[in-house]
This record gives sequence, structure tokens and C-alpha cells, in this order.
Amino acid sequence: MKPINVGLLGLGTVGGGTLTVLRRNREEITRRAGREIQVKIAAVRSLEKAKKHAGADLTITTDLYQVVDNPDIDIVVELIGGTDPAKDLVLRAIANGKHVVTANKALLALHGNEIFAAAQAKGVMVAFEAAVAGGIPIIKALREGLTANRIEWIAGIINGTSNFILSEMRDTGAAFDGVLKEAQALGYAEADPTFDIEGIDAAHKLTIMAAIGFGIPMQFSKAYTEGIGKLTREDIRYAEQLGYRIKLLGITKRTEKGIELRVHPTLIPARRLIANVEGVMNAILVKGDAVGATMYYGAGAGAEPTASAVVADLVDVTRMHTADPEHRVPHLAFQPDALSDAPILPISEVRTAYYLRLRAYDKPGVLADVTRILADLGISIGAMIQKEPSEGEEQVDIIMLTHVTVEKYIDQAISRIEALPVISGKVTRIRLEELNRN
Amino acid sequence: MKPINVGLLGLGTVGGGTLTVLRRNREEITRRAGREIQVKIAAVRSLEKAKKHAGADLTITTDLYQVVDNPDIDIVVELIGGTDPAKDLVLRAIANGKHVVTANKALLALHGNEIFAAAQAKGVMVAFEAAVAGGIPIIKALREGLTANRIEWIAGIINGTSNFILSEMRDTGAAFDGVLKEAQALGYAEADPTFDIEGIDAAHKLTIMAAIGFGIPMQFSKAYTEGIGKLTREDIRYAEQLGYRIKLLGITKRTEKGIELRVHPTLIPARRLIANVEGVMNAILVKGDAVGATMYYGAGAGAEPTASAVVADLVDVTRMHTADPEHRVPHLAFQPDALSDAPILPISEVRTAYYLRLRAYDKPGVLADVTRILADLGISIGAMIQKEPSEGEEQVDIIMLTHVTVEKYIDQAISRIEALPVISGKVTRIRLEELNRN
Repeated sequence: MKPINVGLLGLGTVGGGTLTVLRRNREEITRRAGREIQVKIAAVRSLEKAKKHAGADLTITTDLYQVVDNPDIDIVVELIGGTDPAKDLVLRAIANGKHVVTANKALLALHGNEIFAAAQAKGVMVAFEAAVAGGIPIIKALREGLTANRIEWIAGIINGTSNFILSEMRDTGAAFDGVLKEAQALGYAEADPTFDIEGIDAAHKLTIMAAIGFGIPMQFSKAYTEGIGKLTREDIRYAEQLGYRIKLLGITKRTEKGIELRVHPTLIPARRLIANVEGVMNAILVKGDAVGATMYYGAGAGAEPTASAVVADLVDVTRMHTADPEHRVPHLAFQPDALSDAPILPISEVRTAYYLRLRAYDKPGVLADVTRILADLGISIGAMIQKEPSEGEEQVDIIMLTHVTVEKYIDQAISRIEALPVISGKVTRIRLEELNRN
Repeated sequence: MKPINVGLLGLGTVGGGTLTVLRRNREEITRRAGREIQVKIAAVRSLEKAKKHAGADLTITTDLYQVVDNPDIDIVVELIGGTDPAKDLVLRAIANGKHVVTANKALLALHGNEIFAAAQAKGVMVAFEAAVAGGIPIIKALREGLTANRIEWIAGIINGTSNFILSEMRDTGAAFDGVLKEAQALGYAEADPTFDIEGIDAAHKLTIMAAIGFGIPMQFSKAYTEGIGKLTREDIRYAEQLGYRIKLLGITKRTEKGIELRVHPTLIPARRLIANVEGVMNAILVKGDAVGATMYYGAGAGAEPTASAVVADLVDVTRMHTADPEHRVPHLAFQPDALSDAPILPISEVRTAYYLRLRAYDKPGVLADVTRILADLGISIGAMIQKEPSEGEEQVDIIMLTHVTVEKYIDQAISRIEALPVISGKVTRIRLEELNRN
């Protein structure tokens, strides 16, 4: 089957990320979509800057209309941001019968009603997972995953810049202005940070979620917006003493009188999971009447996290145009003839870290014996607790955390340790996972 | 358009919940799906017990085959659990050209390959969001939301019973046997808790997620499974001292040698969000190469949370058979002609709680004046901090948390408080949200 052809408007952070992800994961993405997704053309501001993305099949142009008017292009991806000329370009792509994927929350919050009506009339799709919370599939969750529910409220940390600033203010006790400068130096805040710190960016995203959650048109002009610029260290500290964290939350809630739609600094009980979302991460809490509260957490910005959402939309459109309706989404995510025969490893070959607890007689040389056995098997120790023996007790607990190793080596180590005369009974072994980036 | 007709196999906890949710949210669900979803027939074990679900359009029978062989039924929902006779019923429904929605993880983990092949050949859908993590739309996230990514690993708290037991053991210092009895009394654990506490239920769910994440067939027989029955209070306490929590995790990871597929008690750093998922709640952490780590949190079991997933699948199938492919999922989740005109409230009408910080001269009667103003406006105080004045300072900070009120009353209160001669400068006002069940 011939590839589906994509044209990019913009090849900056997200556009470059989209190209990178499509190229790097081409094989997996094709196995999922059932058809290759090929970027044929990209319109950029600077041909010079775009050079690094050059590829055999990719035309690079500075003429945006060469993308939206291109008869070979099936899907236009709009990544230039703002409303002008983005709105014209998107409407023209729709008029030309092309599907549109966009990450542009301002465009949708302000002109979504008109754009969706045009798409509906023309019979094309406008997909916008990347417009809210970067790589977190929150649009899909709201629009398809929670369709059984009467959504009662949505509350989200949906602006990474302001969450980074608030996290830093709390951690370091520094004042707003200093932390903002730090965020700008790290690239987490823009030179003009108004949209982020004044809550406007969050209000764009909240407007979109409210529309989807409650089935109302986009009404950005009615959103209440208050930023984080006036928050002081004192307030953050007092809140902490009372058991709360301060977060910039977007909140939309259904009430008997109408719908609340508001972005402002908010105290949240520190014990709530969402109160512990730190740095540039995003999280959205959705309360449905049947499912209760569900939460969605991940990176809300950045080249590849946002590209993850853009490409998911491309796969959605591609699947729609490739298979019979019944086979749109393969049962196991990958096309049935594209499953992999990668073997499942036996547990003895699994790599992880371990917690070990031994009971030993309180005699000299015990630790030397145990650590020698571990060292001989290449197992290194990350932390250890040795308890003083309780009164009248001859035995002590020794607890060790190992670094990552292979399970068969731990099994051997445990056999040898249990055979030591100074060890009493069995060794307790529990696996340990850091669950960080690797 | 005529309703889509559904037949239920089983009308117990989840079946009853499905009927309740479909009936209660009929109007919203129809606005989303574009067509009414009507349960026409349900097969039950006991007609007596099913009486409470009786309805004008609902036939209740004890003959399971009357559902799967019924020519009027478009979608069969299998909720009887186990593999016998569930497997025969599902295959027969498929052979009869019906779509199938199932919450049966054991059936899919053991016989999914055969069932999906049959569905593929017949051109019907088998949907199973409810089979993993109850109402959390994790299947949709993995299968559609993260399609851009090479999934690197998935780690989940996917058995509420064992997570409840571990949370209780940590909180109360009680031993496993006692907490298990408590869980059974609360209905969180079954009379025979083997599947839950031995990790078999989690391994069923993990097998399904591994298949979807990595594009491999279901291979439950190769999963490594270790339960929580041997965990001691001591180990939970030692782990805590080292900065870790112990959770029953299902972990599947892609490595160069093959795929790890394992369920066992696991130490996780206490600072990770997933380490703080307590009680019967579920959470799944998914690491993709583009998006990074994303997390999905919510209720993993129970009548209505599981029904939320069953009904989402019903809406998915219904949308597929109702609209043109391009209009399968409406842009704003609800059909374009079914948007609501609910008004957006002005911020003055919003109901929330408040943090107030005032600077006051350290004189008698200040608090009496302030609390009088609040009381007159019907605003009650939940917590308060009054600082001792620093040396040489004439002013003190007073911090108050109010209960929920309407914003216009707080605005009035602040004006009156600022007018008091004993108050210095402006009152700081930050909104406070509990983000709990309401």
C-alpha cells in the first residue's frame, strides 16, 4: 500500500521532533498504522536552519501555501503556532480536502468552532492531541476513553513553565523573579513569558478540555485567568505549614448554575498525587460520575513528547484510511501480520536490583563473608542497614540493597550466603526497581 | 437512527454497573455516540437476583446462548469471567458476526490469540478496555495514544486487592494475615484470594499490556509470578527506612535478549508518584522513547469504574457503525448538533475555598474584627496561623483557610477587612481546592 503523505507547516522544535520520531520509529509506526507515514514537504522560515533535517524524499520550502495547496499531500500538520496565518492555512487545507493535525491550542481555543464546522462540512478530520499537555493522551482519554461518564470536573497542571517556577520557589525558597530568570536560562521559559506565567496558555488548553468534557463550544473569552507573578515565598511556606502545595491549576467544573472555567494559583492538599507533580511535568485529574477520579501524567512540552502526540494523530488518521472500519485499531495495537516473535525471558535472565534481608549471628567477619560472596558474583551493594541486636538476642538483621544484576547471580549468591554457618535461616529477597529513565 | 442493540452475558457487579451507567447517562452517551445504546437482553444465573435490574425493554434469561445466537443483537458483552464457557460463548458470538466487548483478562491472556484471529477473519471487533485496570483507559492509551513510541517498559500497580493489603500493612504495621481478613470483610478481597494475592490476576493484565505495547502474541504461560503472601512487616519497615515502598508491580520490559514479563513485590523509591498510589487504586507507568514516562491512575475495579470501560468500548463500536469514518469521533467528543449551551459562570459566581493572608498591627481585637466580617458574609474558617511578631516588628501575619464559599462574598470580605484601621496593606487571596470526591 502506498504511503500516506504528510506536509509540515513549521520545522522548529515540534516539527523537527516529529520528523525525528517518524524516521527513528518508522518500522514500529508502520506496523501499527498498517501503512507508511511519509513527510513529503515542510515549509520553514529559514532554509538554512532546516538543513539539518534534509532527507532524500523531503522537499523543504519557505512557501507555506505550497504545503496546503499540494495535491500529493493527504495530511497537513500545522506547527507554526499563533492564529495568523495559522487560521487561514488550516481553513485552506480543509477546503482542499486535507486532514489537519495541529498542536495549536491558541488557534483552537479562539477559532476552533469555525475550524471544526468547516472540517465537518468537508468530511475531513482535524486532530489535536498535541494541543493539550504535550505527549499525554488526554484528548483521547476525554473524547474516547471516558465516554460512559458524566464528567463532573477537570483540574490540571497544564503549563510546565509555571509548574517549574512554583516547584523551584518551594524547593529553594527563592523569589519569583530569580526563578523566572533561571527558567529562562534553562530554556523552560521564553524571553517573553507572559502567556505561560499569566495563565493564558493554560486557559487555552482548559478551554479545549472543557469543550470536550462537557460538550460545549469553545469559549476562551469567558475563561478567568490569573497568573503566578504575584505569589510570594511567604505564601508558599505558609501553605506548606498548613499541609498544602500551591499549583497553577486549570479548573473546569459543571455546576447547577453553569460551568466554571478558571486558571489561577491554587492550594491543593499535599497528600494528593497531583500536588506532587513537580518541575515541567503536567498532570490532569478528571472526575467522572462512573469512573471516579482518574489522573494522566507526563511531559507537557518538549520536542519529542509533543511529537509523540502529533504522530499518534497521524496514525489515527492513517488507520482510518487504511483498514476496514472493524479493523481500524488492530486488537494488539500492531497489525496482525506484523507481530514480533521476540522471546519472553525466563526470570533467571531478568536484570533488576534487590533488597536482601539476612539474619546473622552477631559475630566478627559476618559482613566480610557476605560481601565477598556478592563481590565474587559481580554484585555491588548500594545501601546497607545493620541493626544492633536486641537485648538477649544473639541474631541481628542485615539489610542490603544491591545495584542492578542478573537474577541467576542473586540466586547463586543467596545459596552461598544461606550455607554460611553464621547465617540463620533463609535470606529474604525482594526485587527493587528505580522506575526512572532507563 | 435506530439504537444499537446490546446483549449482556452476566448481570453481577460489572453487568449491573453497566446497566446502571447506560441508563443514568443515556442522554450524554447518546450525544457522544450519535445513536442510542440499548441493552435488549441479559443472561443471568439467578432470575431472582436479576429482578432489581428489570426494565421495560430488557429480556432477562438464564440461557447464555439466547444472547449470543440472538439475531437482533449487534454487540455481545461478556462479563461472566473465567474461560469456560466464556471462550465458547465469545467464539460463537464472533461466528455469528457480532462484535464482542469483554472485561475478561483471564480469557484474553490465555486464549486471546485465537479469539482475535477469529474476529479478524470474521470482520468484527473484540474490545477489552475493561480487562485491564478497570476504568483507566490504558488500553486506548497504549493502542492509540502512544503509537508514535517504541515502548521501552510498562510497570503497573494493577491489582487493587494486593495494593490495599500492602498499604494497610504499611499504615498500621499489621501482619499480612490480619490485613487479608480485613480486606475480605470490606469486600476488597474474595473468599478465595489466590488470584489476587499470588499475582495471577496482575499477570493476566500484564500479559495483555505486553502484547499491545510490544506487538507480541499473548504469552501468559511465560509470565513469572510471585505474590505478596510472604512479605513481612519488617521488610516493609526496613524498605521505608531506606526510602522505598513495597508494591506488587507488573513489569514488562524490552531488552536486547528478549522481553521481561514478571509480577512480584517490588521496592520503588518513595518519591516516585507511583509509589504513592494507595489502597485499591491502580496506576500504570509507561515509558516510550519519544514521550518519556507517562502515568495513568484511577480505580482498577468496582461496578461503575469497570462499567465505565465497558461502556467506552460500546461507544467505540457504536461510533464505528454510525458515522462516516472521518466523523467517527466528533471533534468535541459530542456530536456537532448535540453541543450544550450551558453558560460559563463569571468568576464572581465560582464556589471554592480560600487562603487569606493579612498583615495586621499586633493589637487586641484584630481577630475579632476580621472573623466578624467573615461570619457576617457566611464564610467559615477551617484553619488559621497567627505568627508571633518578629523583634522590632509592629505587624504580624495572619493566615486563614476558609471553607467553600462564593467568590463575590470573599471579594466583599476582603474590601471590608482592608478598610479596618488595624490592617496594613492588601489582603493576599489564593484559591484552595481539595480535589477530592466532589
